[in-house]
Amino acid sequence: MAVRIGLVGTGTVGGGCIDIIQKHRDDFKRHYGIDIELARVCSRNPEQAAAHGVEGLFTGDFRDIVNDPDIDLVIELIGGTTTAREVVLESLAAGKAVVTANKALMATHGKEVMDAAEAAGRELAFEASVGGGIPIIDPLKHSLIANEVLSVMGIVNGTTNYMLTRMAEDNMSYDEALAEAQEAGFAEANPSADVDGFDAAAKIAILASIAFNSRVTMDDVYTRGITNITPVDLEAAADMGYAVKLLAIAHRTPGGIDVRVHPTMLPADHQMAKVNGVFNAIYVIGDAVGETMFFGEGAGAGPAASAVMGDVLEVARHLSQGVPPLVGCTCTDELPILPIEELSMKYYIRFSVADRLGVLATMAEVFARHNVSVHSMVQRGKGETGAVDVIYVTHQAKERDVRSAIDEIKAEDDLLYAEPSLIRVEE
Amino acid sequence: MAVRIGLVGTGTVGGGCIDIIQKHRDDFKRHYGIDIELARVCSRNPEQAAAHGVEGLFTGDFRDIVNDPDIDLVIELIGGTTTAREVVLESLAAGKAVVTANKALMATHGKEVMDAAEAAGRELAFEASVGGGIPIIDPLKHSLIANEVLSVMGIVNGTTNYMLTRMAEDNMSYDEALAEAQEAGFAEANPSADVDGFDAAAKIAILASIAFNSRVTMDDVYTRGITNITPVDLEAAADMGYAVKLLAIAHRTPGGIDVRVHPTMLPADHQMAKVNGVFNAIYVIGDAVGETMFFGEGAGAGPAASAVMGDVLEVARHLSQGVPPLVGCTCTDELPILPIEELSMKYYIRFSVADRLGVLATMAEVFARHNVSVHSMVQRGKGETGAVDVIYVTHQAKERDVRSAIDEIKAEDDLLYAEPSLIRVEE
Repeated sequence: MAVRIGLVGTGTVGGGCIDIIQKHRDDFKRHYGIDIELARVCSRNPEQAAAHGVEGLFTGDFRDIVNDPDIDLVIELIGGTTTAREVVLESLAAGKAVVTANKALMATHGKEVMDAAEAAGRELAFEASVGGGIPIIDPLKHSLIANEVLSVMGIVNGTTNYMLTRMAEDNMSYDEALAEAQEAGFAEANPSADVDGFDAAAKIAILASIAFNSRVTMDDVYTRGITNITPVDLEAAADMGYAVKLLAIAHRTPGGIDVRVHPTMLPADHQMAKVNGVFNAIYVIGDAVGETMFFGEGAGAGPAASAVMGDVLEVARHLSQGVPPLVGCTCTDELPILPIEELSMKYYIRFSVADRLGVLATMAEVFARHNVSVHSMVQRGKGETGAVDVIYVTHQAKERDVRSAIDEIKAEDDLLYAEPSLIRVEE
Repeated sequence: MAVRIGLVGTGTVGGGCIDIIQKHRDDFKRHYGIDIELARVCSRNPEQAAAHGVEGLFTGDFRDIVNDPDIDLVIELIGGTTTAREVVLESLAAGKAVVTANKALMATHGKEVMDAAEAAGRELAFEASVGGGIPIIDPLKHSLIANEVLSVMGIVNGTTNYMLTRMAEDNMSYDEALAEAQEAGFAEANPSADVDGFDAAAKIAILASIAFNSRVTMDDVYTRGITNITPVDLEAAADMGYAVKLLAIAHRTPGGIDVRVHPTMLPADHQMAKVNGVFNAIYVIGDAVGETMFFGEGAGAGPAASAVMGDVLEVARHLSQGVPPLVGCTCTDELPILPIEELSMKYYIRFSVADRLGVLATMAEVFARHNVSVHSMVQRGKGETGAVDVIYVTHQAKERDVRSAIDEIKAEDDLLYAEPSLIRVEE
């Protein structure tokens, strides 16, 4: 008997899911013995359902799906943490399995919904919440579990990776790159979730929770976006042999979890430095497997629907064979989150300064006094208004000390012409 | 109660598995509720068992494991298709689940052992047979199943990728690169399985079988190695914007499966062109997911043991929860294998010719008569003996026609100074 599916949300990804079911239902039966049937479709836009030829399954009220005893599995694709949370919790409570692509929900209410799934004895799968079509949650929950994961790092936001690629390769300004991304449909009219790093923060919270077996929420993630990055920085980084990426980073350290999102300089020959445009990649380092990377399209109807429907088929396989949930919440440890101020790393800092004698001496003295050891200093061509860019790359230094030094330099009278640019370096 | 494991084979990978069990057994229990116990270890070398402190579990006869009713799961790591086949078939017949890293076995006797597993009602897992630690079989059998897979391409042999990288980047000869790889332990004393492409052929047979739901065996794979590749070819390819990789390729085409292993020119900006050294990568193109790549270490104790133990933990999870095998053989279709002579692609062909008038006219005439359209022709510096390298890149041409043209040129009196070099181009 077919596993009956209720779909909530018929936007880009939901439409992609309908397409896959219509195209491949017979293949799934023949290849895997898994039969799925789209039973009901809920949306605010009946015309979206009609566009995919499923207007006969349409309802405007998600409770028509939750309350339908014949529906076995609910796909939640409306996003956000309000109605989506109700859809997920009420579906589980009604005894249905749930597949969701909702990163915000998993990164903020992850424990609540995982607990609800466990209480209901139902599966909750969310591969599509990170990395679009790239299999990453499933490998972390299955293939790689023999490892103690040491690091997970990702280019997990296609919009900002596209913008940084255009800025680096075509010398575009931030504003030009953003306008182009919006034009191409890669960026929203309000781009904050992407450019301020919040989207990436949600995703690394989810990945870190699984990788380190310890709950990490979005609030735990130190988050900075790309709004202050200029072509000057990208050019200077390239000259030094680095690429700049908005990296979502999670390291296991002896003291706890180091988890953050910020523009990051990566050596140009690092595999992730070569991931350009809207592509995503997640880098996983395990104590046995060593370095691995998962690369692919991080957004779009096809890729996201591939991940959602992969989950749907897996859950449907279990339902039709009477197999109970095999993997629930794996956050069995409670590792502390390290405050960024306590971390040590290398820094790229660009100051736009007055081009006059004594400036370098002043800054050198401030760095020294704050225990920030300078690895290299280079001046680059004069900007407007006669200012000159002075770029420092530090040795390993403490974030707290670097910030104190920068604050003190900023406080000097008539020294800086603009807000300093700070990019952390990951080797 | 712990799932009891019998390990057959205590070489590099087997040793890595013992290390993982000893290091992380408690973590597996705490994180996943999976308890595994190493119950018996079989090897030809008792000292290998002793080196890992498990001499108390040692036996020299694998039937001590097969016949032990308390052993639930057998890990086969001896390789080859003779004793290994007996270990796998007898273990399954005795009601044990089996995890193997044996690519040769799966690529030649895949149907037999999958059928045996099905008949026995036991799981047979083989993630480590392809790509070392890189999760690829599991993603193809789970996360990506909503896709019709269009192509699977891989750099799946680390030895040859290391050699080609050294030849390209450091202008080494084939012999120098091989000697260095042997010195570093990447290549065997008899390197044929690697350099002649047989290792890669076994792996693409396995991947193609899963990706296309149709059995492909090693004999189906057209296989050429890297023994004829010279630094001249790598330099010429680089100048044209290509990298040369030993690629294992499988395409789904309307007429059937195109599956082969040979040196391949890839555009330098292709994500796989940037995979260097001993690293492996598998590129999967699906109709929904688009382009994805799985990258990592293709060999070595840690990576291979990561894959083996990932399978072991997954199977142990099922055994301890009383879950029957969920995914067996998925080769439900019977797609024909296309003979390479019928395929059309682009070709790089280098002739070492006598530097005299009329040579180019002769060759141009032969190409034209065989319907091979030339995209570009370039001469490169004189070789020894006054010969000159003439390099052609063709437009899309039929393999059969290209071979006829080359054979005819080879048959010309006093024209060629050496065997022509042929590299297929993948865009």
